Amino acid sequence: MSKINKVVLAYSGGLDTSAIIPWLKENYDCEVVAFVADVGQGEEELVGIEEKAIASGASACYIADLKEEMVKDYIYPSLKTGAIYEGKYLLGTSMARPIIAKAQVECALEIGADALCHGCTGKGNDQVRFEGAFAALAPQLTVIAPWREWNLRSREALLDYLAERNIPCTASLEKIYSRDANAWHVSTEGGVLENTWNAPNELCWVWTKDPQQAPDVAETVSVLVEKGEVVAVDGKPMTPYNALHYLNGKGIEHGIGRIDIVENRLVGIKSRGCYETPGGTIMMEALRAVEQLVLDKESFEFRQTIGLKASHLIYDGRWFTPLCQSLLAAANTLAQDVTGEVVIQLYKGQATVTQKRSLNSLYSEEFATFGEDDVYDHSHAGGFIRLYSLASRIRALNSQK
Amino acid sequence: MSKINKVVLAYSGGLDTSAIIPWLKENYDCEVVAFVADVGQGEEELVGIEEKAIASGASACYIADLKEEMVKDYIYPSLKTGAIYEGKYLLGTSMARPIIAKAQVECALEIGADALCHGCTGKGNDQVRFEGAFAALAPQLTVIAPWREWNLRSREALLDYLAERNIPCTASLEKIYSRDANAWHVSTEGGVLENTWNAPNELCWVWTKDPQQAPDVAETVSVLVEKGEVVAVDGKPMTPYNALHYLNGKGIEHGIGRIDIVENRLVGIKSRGCYETPGGTIMMEALRAVEQLVLDKESFEFRQTIGLKASHLIYDGRWFTPLCQSLLAAANTLAQDVTGEVVIQLYKGQATVTQKRSLNSLYSEEFATFGEDDVYDHSHAGGFIRLYSLASRIRALNSQK
Amino acid sequence: MSKINKVVLAYSGGLDTSAIIPWLKENYDCEVVAFVADVGQGEEELVGIEEKAIASGASACYIADLKEEMVKDYIYPSLKTGAIYEGKYLLGTSMARPIIAKAQVECALEIGADALCHGCTGKGNDQVRFEGAFAALAPQLTVIAPWREWNLRSREALLDYLAERNIPCTASLEKIYSRDANAWHVSTEGGVLENTWNAPNELCWVWTKDPQQAPDVAETVSVLVEKGEVVAVDGKPMTPYNALHYLNGKGIEHGIGRIDIVENRLVGIKSRGCYETPGGTIMMEALRAVEQLVLDKESFEFRQTIGLKASHLIYDGRWFTPLCQSLLAAANTLAQDVTGEVVIQLYKGQATVTQKRSLNSLYSEEFATFGEDDVYDHSHAGGFIRLYSLASRIRALNSQK
Amino acid sequence: MSKINKVVLAYSGGLDTSAIIPWLKENYDCEVVAFVADVGQGEEELVGIEEKAIASGASACYIADLKEEMVKDYIYPSLKTGAIYEGKYLLGTSMARPIIAKAQVECALEIGADALCHGCTGKGNDQVRFEGAFAALAPQLTVIAPWREWNLRSREALLDYLAERNIPCTASLEKIYSRDANAWHVSTEGGVLENTWNAPNELCWVWTKDPQQAPDVAETVSVLVEKGEVVAVDGKPMTPYNALHYLNGKGIEHGIGRIDIVENRLVGIKSRGCYETPGGTIMMEALRAVEQLVLDKESFEFRQTIGLKASHLIYDGRWFTPLCQSLLAAANTLAQDVTGEVVIQLYKGQATVTQKRSLNSLYSEEFATFGEDDVYDHSHAGGFIRLYSLASRIRALNSQK
Repeated sequence: MSKINKVVLAYSGGLDTSAIIPWLKENYDCEVVAFVADVGQGEEELVGIEEKAIASGASACYIADLKEEMVKDYIYPSLKTGAIYEGKYLLGTSMARPIIAKAQVECALEIGADALCHGCTGKGNDQVRFEGAFAALAPQLTVIAPWREWNLRSREALLDYLAERNIPCTASLEKIYSRDANAWHVSTEGGVLENTWNAPNELCWVWTKDPQQAPDVAETVSVLVEKGEVVAVDGKPMTPYNALHYLNGKGIEHGIGRIDIVENRLVGIKSRGCYETPGGTIMMEALRAVEQLVLDKESFEFRQTIGLKASHLIYDGRWFTPLCQSLLAAANTLAQDVTGEVVIQLYKGQATVTQKRSLNSLYSEEFATFGEDDVYDHSHAGGFIRLYSLASRIRALNSQK
Repeated sequence: MSKINKVVLAYSGGLDTSAIIPWLKENYDCEVVAFVADVGQGEEELVGIEEKAIASGASACYIADLKEEMVKDYIYPSLKTGAIYEGKYLLGTSMARPIIAKAQVECALEIGADALCHGCTGKGNDQVRFEGAFAALAPQLTVIAPWREWNLRSREALLDYLAERNIPCTASLEKIYSRDANAWHVSTEGGVLENTWNAPNELCWVWTKDPQQAPDVAETVSVLVEKGEVVAVDGKPMTPYNALHYLNGKGIEHGIGRIDIVENRLVGIKSRGCYETPGGTIMMEALRAVEQLVLDKESFEFRQTIGLKASHLIYDGRWFTPLCQSLLAAANTLAQDVTGEVVIQLYKGQATVTQKRSLNSLYSEEFATFGEDDVYDHSHAGGFIRLYSLASRIRALNSQK
Repeated sequence: MSKINKVVLAYSGGLDTSAIIPWLKENYDCEVVAFVADVGQGEEELVGIEEKAIASGASACYIADLKEEMVKDYIYPSLKTGAIYEGKYLLGTSMARPIIAKAQVECALEIGADALCHGCTGKGNDQVRFEGAFAALAPQLTVIAPWREWNLRSREALLDYLAERNIPCTASLEKIYSRDANAWHVSTEGGVLENTWNAPNELCWVWTKDPQQAPDVAETVSVLVEKGEVVAVDGKPMTPYNALHYLNGKGIEHGIGRIDIVENRLVGIKSRGCYETPGGTIMMEALRAVEQLVLDKESFEFRQTIGLKASHLIYDGRWFTPLCQSLLAAANTLAQDVTGEVVIQLYKGQATVTQKRSLNSLYSEEFATFGEDDVYDHSHAGGFIRLYSLASRIRALNSQK
Repeated sequence: MSKINKVVLAYSGGLDTSAIIPWLKENYDCEVVAFVADVGQGEEELVGIEEKAIASGASACYIADLKEEMVKDYIYPSLKTGAIYEGKYLLGTSMARPIIAKAQVECALEIGADALCHGCTGKGNDQVRFEGAFAALAPQLTVIAPWREWNLRSREALLDYLAERNIPCTASLEKIYSRDANAWHVSTEGGVLENTWNAPNELCWVWTKDPQQAPDVAETVSVLVEKGEVVAVDGKPMTPYNALHYLNGKGIEHGIGRIDIVENRLVGIKSRGCYETPGGTIMMEALRAVEQLVLDKESFEFRQTIGLKASHLIYDGRWFTPLCQSLLAAANTLAQDVTGEVVIQLYKGQATVTQKRSLNSLYSEEFATFGEDDVYDHSHAGGFIRLYSLASRIRALNSQK
């Protein structure tokens, strides 16, 4: 491996990436540039982050606002597929990784860096997602994953490491829960969750109100969907990020979108996490409800098949692959008819679609009820059933011979 | 078609099948035997049903108690597949039809009948489910579907028809909602539901408390799962039907298991229904939670694939086919490890698994956390990622040539 | 049903559609316009066809040359999916039906007809394909399917029917085999094939040489594929139809592309057919060979999944549905890299790819052999395997507890 | 890692495993036991193998005859799934690995060994298959993979290594092609095949006659299939292995079962191989032909889905997983009806089924032809088509509003 001169680090301002900066300089004898992706993780995580990076030894710190792009180009396409990992998880961390990695690569190429670095641990999915994106976008750049290299194995060791170098750090020794947040969701792992027989406690939930503390009166929100994308909420046209932000506000208040799951990580182990996706859960319900109106039986089934497959590709860090793009294209084609309006009731943890309509609706009051109409004749059913069950009939007749 | 001498009618005691008895006798000049399946639709529907059948002109009325068999041999195998139709519907009506049809066929063969009759309408799924089962089990018997033959087109016409023949009937002229109930669920169609822009009102829900009226205090229930089947609840071993019955009681109280869906019928049209599956929803959550612990990533995905496919086969009346049996065999094989215990919190419409454990759990606190262990070495991940993303890397290198 | 004034008939010039013209006029009291689709069925079938239609009573006869469009817009997109019905059948008749139906509808709309008619029998797939297309493209037009209406049940009856009306007809009484041809394939049904225990005889094959009579010397042909489409053959750029025509010539000479299959028709019965797809078989081999070079493992598997699903949609007459379009979009996305060149050896019934190359090839001599390289390090495999089999390891450790 | 005392090596008698014996002793200071699996690789590979192992330093050499078990318990179940990897490869090496690994583990457990060793290279699939089986069957045993550890990187180095130790070895320096053989197939890699633009030459084929040199006269063979398994050939009942052996003889003579493929290895790279599966190709054709007769449309499609999925699991070394067992169970259930007889013509590289019959056949001459019958009424088709295309009709009517 040739000498590294400049490395771009995906920098969060937390303890791990703060320690990585001096570690890289010492171990690779190189310039370190901090790259911060604003994916909606919250103002408090971004305030003073540039100063912090410089204080840790970075030669520069770039901050990229990716919020609108993330919702528009990563979350919305994913939503059209209906991807939900292992039946529960709305892929909040998974969808954020490719956009961060892509922006990081662009930064590296622009400033002529020869390496990329991330602070993901060696047991998690995120290392695969970052490095999968790096391999697809900039295979010529070297990848450094300190957690797989260094001997620092605890928060205490990291704090000591920084203290020895007089690098200021506000991180505390005690950090029970590991968290990841962006505009779409916040995740919590560790602490009591490590035993699956423990129920989550209040520290396991960050954004959303406990459903039992949520308002006693239900609230409704209306969502306008166009070609599979949320374009307006409560009558107001909104950009993708703004729609998500607005729905997050509603969802948080009513305790919407909490899940507690033991999931299969890509690296062969299981882990448990609590995820909160308040606005996203509402969006997902809205899309699925319009699909109920416009997708025929076989299309609906295929959309589910796509969603199942896409959930793995997205979770597994396969965003920048022809296969993932193929699935997104399939889902986008099906979504061309998914236009309509839904009203969703929010109440103590549940988002329930109560009203839905669409100009493309295949539902027709006239057809569905049991009277006569021009399109459907009762007698058609006789022939249909006969042919539909013909193989069963012949098989049974055979067996009676 | 040769002369029919004796027909066995799937008889419910309702207006439709009451009218079918005299209609069959008049139009086919045959003996009519009423067959009643007790699938847990409720005592009130069974009281006096034999007398009613005889009063309508049936020569005999047989009642078969299928409750335990239905849960054990139809619902439990289906649950192992995870089948949920179009992402929402727990298949309550669909799973009941094959067992009713099978018992009806057995009755017909035993008493030497030469025809089978059902009271399903010509626009619904149930006609296909009944006749699909008939074709597979007794293709030699003639099938009569009065709703596809007669000219009676309204409740009024049916009432008149009975009145003209002096057949007593307690049915009222007004019946806004069409319902179907068994031990697993109750469904409601019609009335305000016919317009998808109407929210369901209180008449659309039969069993379950409105979540907003449900207790303000959450309750928990514990479920023991063995090889994919619920074997005990709250510490008490129970038969399948008893477990379901017990969980129904809990679920009803807390408003669990309501769904409002526009679904694709098999016959090409969409319809809207409100379904209540209180105990079933709890059972489903319990099984899925144990699966989270014991199924590896690829097995979990395949279980989801099986569930998707099985949902269509079951909905579409394909129970008695080699294909459905093949899927059930696949699901049963995967379920051999699905043994464990879960605690579920019931609160205002939601059943939330809060605790789960299994001796077969692939989750390990030791592996999942970020420390060292014998089984997982951080350095393994580097090689894994390299090979995992190798195709992406080569593709990207190609494109840079 | 309102009075029909003008009907457009999909006219082939054969016995059936010749009889349909007078039958429509007599039974519907309407004007009949003959529509002939030239899909490459052969000059001999088109010579004098307009005169024949007029002589049979048609008011006009339109002939549309659809050959190039069929290959470009129906066959090429299908080939990208890899669709092969039930593992064998290259969908020659299936792919031709939607384009014929679409052109027929366009003709009907242009001349203001109010009905569409086809000569497909009531037991076949083609009626479903035609009427499926009609429903999607012109649901307002009435569809007439004489074979499901009239009482003419044999060739003799049809000949008598024409003779009684003094309509000239060159069809003979004896016609043992039923055939369908277009640029892509010719099919043969009936005769000795009706017993599956009979081997096909020489009358069952129309275009291709018997492999045993084919040249004793192998011949090679080279095919250039670009983005999943054949763009040149033997070094010469060719339009889609010309490429197919050229490859048909080669394939016919060497007995390529014969299959003998018992297949499941959409209408619930099985039928047996002999199909010859000489050029198409070569094209298919060429595409699949380039895919071997450029598609990664997961993409290849998904392409196979798409192909399996598409084979049913195309066979089942679902071309003009959002679902089919979604699959075609997915396949087309994957095909963007499918560019390369192959050499195919033709010998006594077999088309065997012997050489292949692609600038997008993920195969690399350097990587595949067992020496060292920069991209692949033997030691990576250890970590990969460890994580890859981690769930198995944990499961086994559990079971030893 | 604790000290290893006794290791069981999967020993072939070839150059690699001959060198591994002394290498293990020197590097692990342990006893080495050679384990030889007879999976039908041929007598010449087994003659004197025990002596050779002892001469190389093994303390003992065990030979297990796995031929019959391999065909019966690994190949036959796989055949029922229809697994063919990437559309071409009949999985000959893949299916042999789990049975070898299982017998090796059993040997190790019996003799109290504490480690397992194989001679697979670090770029191949077989290391994953062996170690995947080891992880599932004996996770407590240490695995040693010399090719990922040592610095010997060429045949020359290995020969020198043996010469230095005075270990006799008949291997030559020149070995252009790498081969693997068992009762089912022989594979060839390397040499001219490393450039995909080279056609295979005569050295690339080991067993089968060149089709161009095969007999000019076709031969037929008849195969009896019962519940998806070949039970008799040419009228003679045979054990699974004997049936395969017999059909190999026929297939070799006629050049049957050659394929030349660039495939995706599990470890992320592509490789090219020539495979010869003469008897297996004939068996596969026989099974698929009986399936044509007995599987209905949806079952056939699901069997194809199972086959696609199983091809990956088997190729990827996942035999001993619940998922693979689940797929085998599904396939076995479908195979219960797959009973029948086929006649196959062998001619210059092609195995073509010409005759087939089954008592379970859903094909019926009566139904398939265009006359009248009791089971199928032409008029049924009208209703079928109407409902089948109803969603298209409604969608089209919507779009015209």
